Amino acid sequence: MIRGLLLVVSAPSGAGKSTLCQALVQRRPDLTLSVSCTTRPPRPTEKNGVDYHFLSETDFEKRVTEGAFLEWARVHGFAYGTPRDRIDQALTAGRDVVLNIDIQGAESVRKAFPLESVRVFITPPSWKELEARLRGRNQDSDDVIQRRLANARAELAHASRYDYWVINDDLENALEELDVILRAEHRRVPRLSEELAALEHWGLAKSARI
Amino acid sequence: MIRGLLLVVSAPSGAGKSTLCQALVQRRPDLTLSVSCTTRPPRPTEKNGVDYHFLSETDFEKRVTEGAFLEWARVHGFAYGTPRDRIDQALTAGRDVVLNIDIQGAESVRKAFPLESVRVFITPPSWKELEARLRGRNQDSDDVIQRRLANARAELAHASRYDYWVINDDLENALEELDVILRAEHRRVPRLSEELAALEHWGLAKSARI
Repeated sequence: MIRGLLLVVSAPSGAGKSTLCQALVQRRPDLTLSVSCTTRPPRPTEKNGVDYHFLSETDFEKRVTEGAFLEWARVHGFAYGTPRDRIDQALTAGRDVVLNIDIQGAESVRKAFPLESVRVFITPPSWKELEARLRGRNQDSDDVIQRRLANARAELAHASRYDYWVINDDLENALEELDVILRAEHRRVPRLSEELAALEHWGLAKSARI
Repeated sequence: MIRGLLLVVSAPSGAGKSTLCQALVQRRPDLTLSVSCTTRPPRPTEKNGVDYHFLSETDFEKRVTEGAFLEWARVHGFAYGTPRDRIDQALTAGRDVVLNIDIQGAESVRKAFPLESVRVFITPPSWKELEARLRGRNQDSDDVIQRRLANARAELAHASRYDYWVINDDLENALEELDVILRAEHRRVPRLSEELAALEHWGLAKSARI
């Protein structure tokens, strides 16, 4: 069984990565969406189990001590964690997983799954658009928005560590790009090295199609 | 201007790479097909200027001394060369180029265009199919076919040096995979490093879409 790929999607807040990840999984039902856990309170539009698993501090800490998280961290005072089990099971079953995660978490995930990780950095089309999106949500105070914009500038410095860069100026275009990236990655030779070795010894074989 | 990519396509003889490359350019008229020069006589189905530029030994040598080839080599006693000008011009103009080339040539091209090269190794679906294709052409003696099969086995050992591996069991599938690979490569961060640096300093900018 060829293991699945782990599409690691990061972006500055407001670049639209949650919407993108959910739309990608709707478009490609063969993909598994990894939903993170957080102690942050849900925003008005967010659904438990879809956007996040919203946990109390006590429940979160319990899972930390159980080793249930692949990685976890505190950002802006709240805890965020990536559940390990679902990703492990999907990858082993040959299914691709979509993981919406911040930059700090993406680095930990890459270390845990160096062969399976495909890291994509999403940006909004412009700073102006990013600011408009953050203000348009009407969810955050001006202080929070200014902090998010400053964070976004700092986060951009990390974009060069990612494998791919996708500009989310149009949802359909961005979805198509994520789909294309995932399909192409299935044909990359480093991921197929075992198959290629077998092929050299046993003759050519049919591989899973992209 | 973002430079174009150079899709370097290699395969054992009989894997169908000439057909694939020509069909890819028909499907994507924005692509430039690089046609190689050779001193080998044309096969019955081959057209001058489409499959190869068929040259005399004298004309070939003249171009060698003029430095017209990016790389050239002798294979099975005949000379093969890749004209430099057309590739240079297309890449500089931001157009992607498809280059059908043997393994030896692919290595030289990678050294000449390390940033632009995207190397794809094509295999037929099985050894049996490869032999059937070589015999089906009715163009070669049994000795030549046996030599080509032995070469194919040796060439497979080089597949692991390529970036991608595409199995040509169905022309439409294989074309789709080549198309997807080229589109994904346009979003790879190492190719966009200059743009990313600019983006960090000047704010987010719109990039060419894939």
